[in-house]
Amino acid sequence: MAPLPEADAMRRAILLAARGLGSTSPNPIVGCVVLDPAGEVVGEGWHERAGGPHAEVNALRQAGERARGGTAVVTLEPCNHTGRTGPCALALIDAGITRVVHAVADPHPLANGGAATLAAAGIDVEGGLLADEAAASNEAWLISVLRGRPFVLWKYAATLDGRIAALDGSSRWITGPQARADVHRLRSEADAVVVGSGTMAADDPHLAVRDHEHPGRPQPLRVVLDTAATATKAGARVLDGAAATLICVAEDAEAAHLPRGSLLRLPRAADGTGLDLTALLAALHDRDVRSVLLEGGPTLAGAFVRAGFVDKVVGYLAPALLGAGPTALGGAGITSIGRALRLDVAETTRFGPDLRITAYPRPATPDTRVTAAASATTEES
Amino acid sequence: MAPLPEADAMRRAILLAARGLGSTSPNPIVGCVVLDPAGEVVGEGWHERAGGPHAEVNALRQAGERARGGTAVVTLEPCNHTGRTGPCALALIDAGITRVVHAVADPHPLANGGAATLAAAGIDVEGGLLADEAAASNEAWLISVLRGRPFVLWKYAATLDGRIAALDGSSRWITGPQARADVHRLRSEADAVVVGSGTMAADDPHLAVRDHEHPGRPQPLRVVLDTAATATKAGARVLDGAAATLICVAEDAEAAHLPRGSLLRLPRAADGTGLDLTALLAALHDRDVRSVLLEGGPTLAGAFVRAGFVDKVVGYLAPALLGAGPTALGGAGITSIGRALRLDVAETTRFGPDLRITAYPRPATPDTRVTAAASATTEES
Repeated sequence: MAPLPEADAMRRAILLAARGLGSTSPNPIVGCVVLDPAGEVVGEGWHERAGGPHAEVNALRQAGERARGGTAVVTLEPCNHTGRTGPCALALIDAGITRVVHAVADPHPLANGGAATLAAAGIDVEGGLLADEAAASNEAWLISVLRGRPFVLWKYAATLDGRIAALDGSSRWITGPQARADVHRLRSEADAVVVGSGTMAADDPHLAVRDHEHPGRPQPLRVVLDTAATATKAGARVLDGAAATLICVAEDAEAAHLPRGSLLRLPRAADGTGLDLTALLAALHDRDVRSVLLEGGPTLAGAFVRAGFVDKVVGYLAPALLGAGPTALGGAGITSIGRALRLDVAETTRFGPDLRITAYPRPATPDTRVTAAASATTEES
Repeated sequence: MAPLPEADAMRRAILLAARGLGSTSPNPIVGCVVLDPAGEVVGEGWHERAGGPHAEVNALRQAGERARGGTAVVTLEPCNHTGRTGPCALALIDAGITRVVHAVADPHPLANGGAATLAAAGIDVEGGLLADEAAASNEAWLISVLRGRPFVLWKYAATLDGRIAALDGSSRWITGPQARADVHRLRSEADAVVVGSGTMAADDPHLAVRDHEHPGRPQPLRVVLDTAATATKAGARVLDGAAATLICVAEDAEAAHLPRGSLLRLPRAADGTGLDLTALLAALHDRDVRSVLLEGGPTLAGAFVRAGFVDKVVGYLAPALLGAGPTALGGAGITSIGRALRLDVAETTRFGPDLRITAYPRPATPDTRVTAAASATTEES
């Protein structure tokens, strides 16, 4: 085999890392390619699941003695701490690796410092190779570390005129099978799937991943926000054994009809609209959830937008017009165009007849927030 | 110069034809490239305005004697009738052209037969070269011939969640300058721009083309549907001299405050919602309007969708979320998902931060219409 340039090895490592999506939380996804001194690939590995060996260890195991004098190409700075498995920095030193190229610096307060440890051991360390690509595929974990709460992806499917259902409530099917399959992929990559009481009452959804492409990948936690505990019936489909389920209800809700093991009591939101989402996200974070897929309707999405908790938006737009019926987003607390939540479109892709738009809310700098709030006050007074 | 392959000459002719958009109605846009016997370009022309010479005549004039023994590459089958200018078939024969390649057959009942006349004169005639591309740029005229009414393009600008304004009515600006400039291009290519009383009352729009890239191109006719004649004030901006204007009011409306020359009285719609759109389109057709740009709000768009008069949809989607405010389309008379107006997306293009989606309603076959109507009756009974 011909030697593989390090950038190509990193691209390969990023692809390997993505195999762990949905299985590694609370850990990041990581991929690793080990090149021998001649630059040939002698080991590949990825972090497959929390508690299992890290990507570097898997790749070094495959490389064996051929790693000696070689280069490890890793999507994330090797860890320096001893968690459930030993620190990777040490494993790389022990294997005789002489050069480490990583993409993204480890932002985690407990794990970083791996690069320094490697350098102190005389290893040639270089960071930042294809950092943007690697960070993009690890965005959920990176944002969860940055924000100290799970990454939240809001997904919706609507007609071109923004309707998620017709006037009579019918919504099967707005989008085609290709888009619906892609939603199942999103679900399988998430640690938790969240719906609200409106979706629960209207659809009695199952929320498990069908047609599982990754047999080893765990089902996402099914989460229902049902403040009054009235939308979830005793025989609801989410209460079957297909996946773990949390029914989140208010502290004072009458929930005797629901299995105690599935019940999570949360404080109500301060503004009286449902549950306190900060408390919800903290509770999910405590359960090792690092990525949340919002699959509910306009009220749920509006509450998350209002709270500033939407990190990514994936909209499936069906080329159809309805002219009536519920819209994708409601009650986000935005009243004028100047206060619209502006996004940056990262990608648009066709899925059969439908269009998928992937976008990220623009970060508001603290100064902008203050200015916007001040001018809003002026406008409204 | 090297000889130009006929397909390349046709691509050039299609580009030339498009220069006439917005100026040629009630005629089509047409482009022509004349190649000498060696295949070199010796003449180019397009139909610049109604009443002016046809594309073939302009191209032959430029070619002069060098056209003899050559090939004419034309986007539309040469005409055979003597209208305001002589028939092009005769001009091609007189110029000594020995081969004619055209893209689209002329669908017009008075004008067709040009190919047969040419063939009878011993000229080698071939049709269909790049017919789809040529038809696409001439779609307004072709559809107007087919339907016997102007082609209707509905344009809207909305947020990703389908809002055309915020809750307080503010909508400047949902989309960015690039998208707004593209709307001006659409306007300049249309024969008429139509708004309803809602837009009139809210915005007092001017509706003329600014920053005109084509100085010779006429301003589109400004059309306001103001059934009760209450939305258009005596000093409305559309009543200035920048372009011709029609204020369409009901036959019984009190409209003494409006200039008589701008007034068009139309019957009310049978269902009581505004004016009779069939009568409107017929009146516009009589005034040589072949393409209409719908620029109004949700009510106007809903009325056109309900009547089945929308031939093309161009949506500008801004990557922003509002969660409240008016939606792009209302009152289209669609109540269930099975009766959604399905479209085919022809193109998606980025305009700065925004996305433009171009789509066409799927043709309903007569049988489908009957079945849909029958099953609708069943469902609703």
